[in-house]
Amino acid sequence: MKLKVYTDRMSQPSRAIIIFCKVNGIQFDEISIILSKRQQLSPEFKEINPLGKVPAIVDGRLKLFESHAILIYLASAFPSVLDHWYPNDLSKRAKIHSVMDWHHTNLRPGAAGYVMNTVLAPHLGLTLDPQAAAKAEKLLTQSLSTLETFWLKGNAKFLLGSNQPSIADLSLVCELMQLQVLEEKDRVRIFSPHKKVEEWIENTRKATMPQFDEVHKVLFNAKARFEKLREMRTVAKPGLQSKM
Amino acid sequence: MKLKVYTDRMSQPSRAIIIFCKVNGIQFDEISIILSKRQQLSPEFKEINPLGKVPAIVDGRLKLFESHAILIYLASAFPSVLDHWYPNDLSKRAKIHSVMDWHHTNLRPGAAGYVMNTVLAPHLGLTLDPQAAAKAEKLLTQSLSTLETFWLKGNAKFLLGSNQPSIADLSLVCELMQLQVLEEKDRVRIFSPHKKVEEWIENTRKATMPQFDEVHKVLFNAKARFEKLREMRTVAKPGLQSKM
Repeated sequence: MKLKVYTDRMSQPSRAIIIFCKVNGIQFDEISIILSKRQQLSPEFKEINPLGKVPAIVDGRLKLFESHAILIYLASAFPSVLDHWYPNDLSKRAKIHSVMDWHHTNLRPGAAGYVMNTVLAPHLGLTLDPQAAAKAEKLLTQSLSTLETFWLKGNAKFLLGSNQPSIADLSLVCELMQLQVLEEKDRVRIFSPHKKVEEWIENTRKATMPQFDEVHKVLFNAKARFEKLREMRTVAKPGLQSKM
Repeated sequence: MKLKVYTDRMSQPSRAIIIFCKVNGIQFDEISIILSKRQQLSPEFKEINPLGKVPAIVDGRLKLFESHAILIYLASAFPSVLDHWYPNDLSKRAKIHSVMDWHHTNLRPGAAGYVMNTVLAPHLGLTLDPQAAAKAEKLLTQSLSTLETFWLKGNAKFLLGSNQPSIADLSLVCELMQLQVLEEKDRVRIFSPHKKVEEWIENTRKATMPQFDEVHKVLFNAKARFEKLREMRTVAKPGLQSKM
């Protein structure tokens, strides 16, 4: 039975899983679970993941969710995946776990919290929370500094001094890609002190092309849509805009 | 060269690592890094973990932090560790990663956030934040329900339907043990709807005795100290107390 992958391509960990499968020649059926239609809460999907979150996979009798757990499982279970994605060497593997654990409590809440509270909330029927946005920006900025000065130290192209990408690079870069939907001034302010981070994102993109851009198409479309909406608001409220 | 483990026994992931080593006969030197004295920020410790957090380990040339990454590494690198702690079976291992990833963004911020904002903050020179406490309690309560109804489903003694503990049981139970320092009424309110969780904590304790109690001694001492302080405040402010 072919691997089943349940995703919404608007979710960054979903995109990481799809890119990983495609780049590594893993055959799978992609089942779309549209979060904006609350399909993750349907009884059918709750059979797959009772906690109602994407991404999730079904491989034979195994039902699995949490994107890092999925990436580790796929890298271990599918022989077509090259060693650099999740090395057999215990020390290298340990460092990959370390940066992925760090991600959970630093980069992820920083990036996702900032995007939610500056752009996404109104599109999901929620209210923007400037206080939460400020808190998330602080965590995001700290996390980008830690990436720049610690996890990306030296001249290596990828995390942990490696010259080939691992599942950690893919997960963290997909997290940061969501910042594409920010207003340009915000995106520039946040990224400009972190040149190494920008290079690393580009290195990871290049190492996973053309799949990387293909899977991110939905994000680039959203970015264009949000920009158009912002322009329309600016035209509709010229007085307000001129005071800003 | 013997394994070095850098800990503050007041930190719950530190306790998980020490218990794991002791239960599994892993020889190690424990180096105390006292957080209340800000020793984690000393230049000496920054050589071990530049991000200034405990626990951390040094094993030969490997320097490692993040408690889940450490538990996985120790279970993989030390042959004395029995398979049930971190099974070789890919599906079982995947489920352990899944519950540990879930922990990062659910149980951990819920439990740690609640304890910090109801008890610990003043002892660390910080202010109690009732709004943050309420938010953390909500996440903690949701997480305990998910444990009760999903991760502990069936009649198994441990997580994921297992009859032997894994590194996930140890990590999550150590997280919950910090709730011992709460006021009794808060602890009872939070735990009483979750009988299975209480049984599972006791199962994990029993499976790792006497090391479990020995390593938690510092926590039980802190609990007694906090209780005494609360009693003293009650005696000092009888008028205020009677209005509550």
